[in-house]
Amino acid sequence: MSIKPILYENNVLKMIDQRLLPVEEVWLEYTDYRAVAEAIKTMVVRGAPAIGVAAAFGAAFGAREIVAADYDAFAPEFEKVCALLAATRPTAVNLFWALDRMKRCAKAHRALSPSGLKARLVGEAMEIAAEDERLNRTLGKNGATLIPDGARVLTHCNAGALATAGYGTALGVIRAAVEAGKKVAVLADETRPWLQGARLTAWELMKDGIPVTLICDNMAGHLMSKGEIDCVIVGADRIAANGDTANKIGTYTVAILAREHGLPFYVAAPISTIDLAIPDGSHIPIEERDRREVTHSGERQLAPEGVTVRNPAFDVTPARLITAIITERGVVSGDYRAELLRLVSGKE
Amino acid sequence: MSIKPILYENNVLKMIDQRLLPVEEVWLEYTDYRAVAEAIKTMVVRGAPAIGVAAAFGAAFGAREIVAADYDAFAPEFEKVCALLAATRPTAVNLFWALDRMKRCAKAHRALSPSGLKARLVGEAMEIAAEDERLNRTLGKNGATLIPDGARVLTHCNAGALATAGYGTALGVIRAAVEAGKKVAVLADETRPWLQGARLTAWELMKDGIPVTLICDNMAGHLMSKGEIDCVIVGADRIAANGDTANKIGTYTVAILAREHGLPFYVAAPISTIDLAIPDGSHIPIEERDRREVTHSGERQLAPEGVTVRNPAFDVTPARLITAIITERGVVSGDYRAELLRLVSGKE
Repeated sequence: MSIKPILYENNVLKMIDQRLLPVEEVWLEYTDYRAVAEAIKTMVVRGAPAIGVAAAFGAAFGAREIVAADYDAFAPEFEKVCALLAATRPTAVNLFWALDRMKRCAKAHRALSPSGLKARLVGEAMEIAAEDERLNRTLGKNGATLIPDGARVLTHCNAGALATAGYGTALGVIRAAVEAGKKVAVLADETRPWLQGARLTAWELMKDGIPVTLICDNMAGHLMSKGEIDCVIVGADRIAANGDTANKIGTYTVAILAREHGLPFYVAAPISTIDLAIPDGSHIPIEERDRREVTHSGERQLAPEGVTVRNPAFDVTPARLITAIITERGVVSGDYRAELLRLVSGKE
Repeated sequence: MSIKPILYENNVLKMIDQRLLPVEEVWLEYTDYRAVAEAIKTMVVRGAPAIGVAAAFGAAFGAREIVAADYDAFAPEFEKVCALLAATRPTAVNLFWALDRMKRCAKAHRALSPSGLKARLVGEAMEIAAEDERLNRTLGKNGATLIPDGARVLTHCNAGALATAGYGTALGVIRAAVEAGKKVAVLADETRPWLQGARLTAWELMKDGIPVTLICDNMAGHLMSKGEIDCVIVGADRIAANGDTANKIGTYTVAILAREHGLPFYVAAPISTIDLAIPDGSHIPIEERDRREVTHSGERQLAPEGVTVRNPAFDVTPARLITAIITERGVVSGDYRAELLRLVSGKE
């Protein structure tokens, strides 16, 4: 039922322009990997899993352009394509995960003819997209048991269908709880400066008939103090080996507020978001984006000309503030270092 | 040096339109108390002490219109004028404090002729304005000792010159620290939805050459975790007898963040902000403002049409999170109930 923001039809990648939502629903078409890279950088598509899916198609498009007699000639050119796509945004690990998977796929099929290899890479991107939606449904079911009937759930940013190939991670858990017959009301932080909550989360939940109330980021603490929030669920851009989680700026604050008010704070993310190569959150690169996101709303000037601005796009929530991490392979809590290693290595 | 947002010249009240800053500097002129009430309601003028000053002039204007042979005929009409001004905004107590003072002034001068009484009320409003700026300078000096040289100070909303008759409360402390030769850098929360931080605090500090960096409300926690903030100072709209403090929405969250990171959290406000009739913060009325402040930026739509919105304009920070309260009569901490009573009753 929920929207799929990334479609692949007739050799064309179609993405809903998330910069224009909720006012306009415009679908942009892509066949060139440079344009896909630009779409990731400029946030036509955003959300860690969705970026991974878009990058996979970008890599497949880049592969199509390569003129090479065999894999050995193909590989270094494909490496360049993937490097350009990887240089778009630094924080979400799903981007690098998807590109690594595309490179591994190419290598695994090195014996194919160039045209066969290129077709296989398109197929791999399609599989990444299909898998993403499928695993979000599993993840959602795993997490839905944690959401009490009648719960008022705060979420930050958009970890919904729009942030994935479909269904969503944090909002996937909410969708699964609703599908299980529970009454759930969502409070959506607007999520400055890009307003993913106001523009995207509110939009996709209203489309699905799930009750949603929009608040400014600085209102969640007040509502918690009034007993109007029961739990928090957010997505993730990268989870370090110890459970420290990078997510949209403001997530750390929400986690501190949740603990202060004795509320559970859940992170919902696919296994591809876990980066065991990163020992803890202090090593996760945090993207700093353009000052104009803060100083302007469209063409409207919100701040004095020339004012100094900080605009970190993500922050790190330490594992100690996270009640549980919800994945498609199960829900873990407590000793995250051991539990995440177990999940990633696939031992159930 | 700092701006005075409220001027009284040639029987006309002039107020800078704070809705248009920082893009336009427009001064509006008032001679009618109903128009002053509308200016308070629509936030041409805002900030607890500034609202009090504007209301005092509004009351004086209302008094000028009253046709009465003596005080006994005048008083019930003046009561109506003050009631209309009081009905504009519920949270800041300075509004009610100023109107009470105007009523007490009228009563104290009941023996005057009607025209003499009206002139006296204009004089009282002028005194309230002059006093406010003067006491902010004293308050600033009292607080400046708490700001270390080289401090990076976070503030929320605008408790500056624009929120008062001049100089400011929280920003008055910063100005006094700078005047004492200290190097101070300010971090200004943009303060959604009305953006007092982005539009007003950044503007008035830049005008005075005090370094200011603008951030979104959800970034303060991240910067604290990185060690980039040394202390917090905010204003107040109403301080209950036990020290619980109502201030702009989001202040409570900043106070929790400050404690989490071991940073001092200071409230700077004149004695007129202390409301001993209110035993604790749970009794302070919290204004809920129009949804459009959240869903639109000027004419630009930021959220889906028809989305449910919460827009509480204030929250309450419990006294236990407040390191000290800075007033013109001194700095208090610890047993706020006893200390505030001592300050209000004027025993030094």
